[in-house]
Amino acid sequence: MSKIKIGIMGASGYGGGELIRTLLRHPHSEIKVATSNTYAGKPVWASFPGLQGFTDLQYSPDGDPSAFDECDLVFLARDNGQAMNFAGDYVARGIRVIDLSADFRFRDPAEYAVWYNMEHASPELTVGSDYGLPELHEQAIRQASIVGNPGCYATASILALAPLYSHELAHTDNIIVDGKSGISGAGRSKFSLDYHFPEANESVTAYKIGGTHRHTGEIEQELSAIAGAPLKVSFTPHLVPMTRGILLTAYANLVGEKSTADLLGIYREFYAKAPFVQVVDKLPSTKHVAGSNMCHIGLSVDPRTNRVTVISVIDNLGKGMVGQAIQNMNIMFHQRQENGLLAPGLWP
Amino acid sequence: MSKIKIGIMGASGYGGGELIRTLLRHPHSEIKVATSNTYAGKPVWASFPGLQGFTDLQYSPDGDPSAFDECDLVFLARDNGQAMNFAGDYVARGIRVIDLSADFRFRDPAEYAVWYNMEHASPELTVGSDYGLPELHEQAIRQASIVGNPGCYATASILALAPLYSHELAHTDNIIVDGKSGISGAGRSKFSLDYHFPEANESVTAYKIGGTHRHTGEIEQELSAIAGAPLKVSFTPHLVPMTRGILLTAYANLVGEKSTADLLGIYREFYAKAPFVQVVDKLPSTKHVAGSNMCHIGLSVDPRTNRVTVISVIDNLGKGMVGQAIQNMNIMFHQRQENGLLAPGLWP
Amino acid sequence: MSKIKIGIMGASGYGGGELIRTLLRHPHSEIKVATSNTYAGKPVWASFPGLQGFTDLQYSPDGDPSAFDECDLVFLARDNGQAMNFAGDYVARGIRVIDLSADFRFRDPAEYAVWYNMEHASPELTVGSDYGLPELHEQAIRQASIVGNPGCYATASILALAPLYSHELAHTDNIIVDGKSGISGAGRSKFSLDYHFPEANESVTAYKIGGTHRHTGEIEQELSAIAGAPLKVSFTPHLVPMTRGILLTAYANLVGEKSTADLLGIYREFYAKAPFVQVVDKLPSTKHVAGSNMCHIGLSVDPRTNRVTVISVIDNLGKGMVGQAIQNMNIMFHQRQENGLLAPGLWP
Amino acid sequence: MSKIKIGIMGASGYGGGELIRTLLRHPHSEIKVATSNTYAGKPVWASFPGLQGFTDLQYSPDGDPSAFDECDLVFLARDNGQAMNFAGDYVARGIRVIDLSADFRFRDPAEYAVWYNMEHASPELTVGSDYGLPELHEQAIRQASIVGNPGCYATASILALAPLYSHELAHTDNIIVDGKSGISGAGRSKFSLDYHFPEANESVTAYKIGGTHRHTGEIEQELSAIAGAPLKVSFTPHLVPMTRGILLTAYANLVGEKSTADLLGIYREFYAKAPFVQVVDKLPSTKHVAGSNMCHIGLSVDPRTNRVTVISVIDNLGKGMVGQAIQNMNIMFHQRQENGLLAPGLWP
Repeated sequence: MSKIKIGIMGASGYGGGELIRTLLRHPHSEIKVATSNTYAGKPVWASFPGLQGFTDLQYSPDGDPSAFDECDLVFLARDNGQAMNFAGDYVARGIRVIDLSADFRFRDPAEYAVWYNMEHASPELTVGSDYGLPELHEQAIRQASIVGNPGCYATASILALAPLYSHELAHTDNIIVDGKSGISGAGRSKFSLDYHFPEANESVTAYKIGGTHRHTGEIEQELSAIAGAPLKVSFTPHLVPMTRGILLTAYANLVGEKSTADLLGIYREFYAKAPFVQVVDKLPSTKHVAGSNMCHIGLSVDPRTNRVTVISVIDNLGKGMVGQAIQNMNIMFHQRQENGLLAPGLWP
Repeated sequence: MSKIKIGIMGASGYGGGELIRTLLRHPHSEIKVATSNTYAGKPVWASFPGLQGFTDLQYSPDGDPSAFDECDLVFLARDNGQAMNFAGDYVARGIRVIDLSADFRFRDPAEYAVWYNMEHASPELTVGSDYGLPELHEQAIRQASIVGNPGCYATASILALAPLYSHELAHTDNIIVDGKSGISGAGRSKFSLDYHFPEANESVTAYKIGGTHRHTGEIEQELSAIAGAPLKVSFTPHLVPMTRGILLTAYANLVGEKSTADLLGIYREFYAKAPFVQVVDKLPSTKHVAGSNMCHIGLSVDPRTNRVTVISVIDNLGKGMVGQAIQNMNIMFHQRQENGLLAPGLWP
Repeated sequence: MSKIKIGIMGASGYGGGELIRTLLRHPHSEIKVATSNTYAGKPVWASFPGLQGFTDLQYSPDGDPSAFDECDLVFLARDNGQAMNFAGDYVARGIRVIDLSADFRFRDPAEYAVWYNMEHASPELTVGSDYGLPELHEQAIRQASIVGNPGCYATASILALAPLYSHELAHTDNIIVDGKSGISGAGRSKFSLDYHFPEANESVTAYKIGGTHRHTGEIEQELSAIAGAPLKVSFTPHLVPMTRGILLTAYANLVGEKSTADLLGIYREFYAKAPFVQVVDKLPSTKHVAGSNMCHIGLSVDPRTNRVTVISVIDNLGKGMVGQAIQNMNIMFHQRQENGLLAPGLWP
Repeated sequence: MSKIKIGIMGASGYGGGELIRTLLRHPHSEIKVATSNTYAGKPVWASFPGLQGFTDLQYSPDGDPSAFDECDLVFLARDNGQAMNFAGDYVARGIRVIDLSADFRFRDPAEYAVWYNMEHASPELTVGSDYGLPELHEQAIRQASIVGNPGCYATASILALAPLYSHELAHTDNIIVDGKSGISGAGRSKFSLDYHFPEANESVTAYKIGGTHRHTGEIEQELSAIAGAPLKVSFTPHLVPMTRGILLTAYANLVGEKSTADLLGIYREFYAKAPFVQVVDKLPSTKHVAGSNMCHIGLSVDPRTNRVTVISVIDNLGKGMVGQAIQNMNIMFHQRQENGLLAPGLWP
């Protein structure tokens, strides 16, 4: 099997580093170009010392439009609002794109404008793109020229609730989604006093409460499509003092009576063919999936309120970002979904 | 002013240690007896090395019924199900009691039986007891012979929601309470693999999901009384990798339209005379209150769903346990509530 | 007793915040002025939210030379190289100074130039200043117009080794001092990628190895004076993933044979009158002193090598900085050393 | 290439879990048996939930002498003092052994008795065994029937100092080795109050000071052999609040004058053929190697004292234990040393 030739744009952030680290062990791919203005001309281990001894790859500067010409696929790991300006160029040259930003996550560019406060620069490209959650959209991803890789909280939320709404098991109002994330979710370049170790350590904080976090839009887009009816969720993100991991607690009111065992069975069936979703009996913790592309889901029904609480855990840089991006790559290039992703979580 | 003479039963756990540490700086009190079977005959700094140089207090053995005879007040810091067996003895001798367990938190002993799976051994004592949340029950606490000191999650939950229900501002169904606690909440004597540093570090876990955590009963008792109608909450506790602190995220559906500013004003008025509750504009984090008796509350209304998200933060060993117990003591003995509690949180 | 009137210059860093927090409970002092250019005109809790509800103090701007005219004492909490430019003005106005930077720690201005790469701007002021380690220099501190408050690592190092060299118990060569510090030691304003939570967490790093850390100069100045002979130490600082605390491991070769018990006795006698130094039998950990002004010291002799290992622990913001500064203040103003400092460490 | 058939005895501790996790991705090996009395009959993910979905391997009970009959190699992951009782049986059946305990680390059984307080039960077996540090003993390991896998601190210490003593660059007295370890080094089964998250978090502790830690014996054995003369080291271990990683700071007095650059060159040459040792210019931190089999080494010479400070970092469960064990396995079975170990450290 010939190797997928890969470019990474913006390869000195956490997404870029995780892509390099993971792809180094992918059996059928090869990183041809990794760009970073800060580190141009230096080895990738100048930015990620742990890569020393594993690769001689050097950073190229950003901005050369032909830099990726020999690539089959480019991962765009830049801030929101950038990919929509140049993804079209790559597609025109026959290079497929997986975008880690939010630019290609919305089917309706108007929704993008609502949540990201800017007009979409290339609404025509959204036609050839798809939302890169393989558990829901494997066929579309296989064909897509651009894949909008989902947000980390959105991935955990949609996986936690999709089985309920695909079977009309829960009401479409009063959906509460409460997320707890490790601080790597804030990214690498935006270090600020809030993430200064002495201030972030030993502290939990909520942010963007009151339904204002942008991942809300993605979650509603996907769950509404599954439910066949528009629905809204109240999503609140929190930062907890750890590096990696998201635990998502979702609450929904059941239609009719279902036991915990009933729902576990339905969830298991729903994810029977999904190699990276495990429905578990014992409650999951984020450490179970740290460093992996896994999502573990547990749940319990409270008969007092006829409400179900669903817990999903992922590594925000794994299934929440880079693992999922590589899973999408595997699908786009007709490989086994698991290629390069067969790493269980690190314990302890 | 004469000093309150104090006994502490079970003084080698986190509650006992925090009582000793805090009372050492209380201006009008004196610890006469502190019991611990494990450490009987040893100085208290054998159990808490940080106390070395601050006190010569020694542990007495547990179990001597006359041990507290010279005390005005005994703090009971034992497991659930024990205080109800001997609190009556102390009351009979004219000693007032603040119980840190759940034994005297319920007005209705039948509710205790529901949540704690055992019959209350002294239901008659619950008549002379009160729920020790000073922001709601200051007058009753002043008179009570036994104060049932609230649970940590319950304190944060009730303070977060009381203003809404005292003004009929929110519906009494669909109340979600999502709590995140530092691991000291698990206590000192129950160390297990779940709390072994390598396994608890870098991990978030939910536990007792589906409405099964016992603090649910307290929260419902108090909020129902305020609302004047029975209500239920869906409460989910989580452990986050830090030592101290609880952040509580509460969700409720508003009756009519209120803005964030409206609600902040109502909350400020509700807590105008509460020295240990601060309603804040910027979102609170647990570190703001670490080591103190403070509760900080922030909130935001989502007009898309007409739902309010309320965030409250406390130190689980401060306002969530020992600070509150000392605040109750001050009230019972006609002192200023703030005595011994004027320590701001440690930063960073 | 009239209250000491206090000014704090640079009161929005960790030193300033800890000064405010600690002085709020000092019985005989009062903060008159606290300056910060960033927060001028705002309440101090704009910078330290935990102070909300405890004080109405507002920040003044930096730079008004008469700002401290009503003060008896000014704490200078600015970067190295600044205090030496304006401390003289305050002294001339009869205001005493405690400087938290390195500017007044050296008896010989030439040594300052060696370690800090700049000429001392006011060498004449060093005559009226003293090194603010009360366990060694109480009498001089009482008289000093300027006190150079010691560095955090230097405090832990000198306290660990002073008894050995005051009794000629150890050789003056081959002294190794290995320090481990929490990350608050890096300060608040210098947040950078190195201290970004995801990168600092779960990691230990050495820095300035090979004898290049500036505290080396202070340690050698003080130990040489005690030993009565010039000596050198090899000091290596490390950052460990916690917020507060320093653990210092010192190694020295014994002159003659001494047992662990012998040395513990000598240490206890040496510190018999020092309220903030505890010589302990069980090995100390930094948590024993977190949030306090205590220093705990333990040690053990290895008869195989006739070498002693001494462990000292402090809170880098307590005895390593602000606690010590307040201890110095108490001495300068003829108060009990313990005033405002009777807080045991927080546990857990 | 046929697969190495592997047995793991004691597979529910951290060593066992890391063996399973790592071997799952080894291209030419297969786990045939993994024993655990606690989990016998259950899938390995009952003990390590992160393995769910990656393997169907089940635990066998301990104690069946023929359990490993189809294996080529058994990893013994039991406490000290056990392997020496049954390793001989396996060897007699033609099964090679890698022992993770200390039982086969000493060339001289008398040294084992000194450091482990018990007579070696099978001194005759130590003839066919070797100390499993591949950077020093690759040829012997290839032949050995039993490999004594080195201690974690010992690995970091010997790698840090071997180049110095192989070239007679440093004096053999006054060697100080100061180690800082994550808490997973304490193992999984021995959880106790010292490792209870609330007590271990935010704290640094020294233990076994004064030259009493058992790894001292291994370090001295290996460095003495390299130096060609008996030498002693003063080793002090510390626990820091993180899960994985060891940073080792070694101090030695130079013979003659060497610059930092000189020594870096000598170290690079010494480790030129060692795929898992990187000599680095920028100081290493433990996070650079977390989750990998790498050892990074940095150093600096202090001309003031003519002393070198060497810093080495490893993952205590990687190069400090399981990674090294698999590296040894690869050598014993004539595979590439890197097989299964090409995972760079996780970042962040």
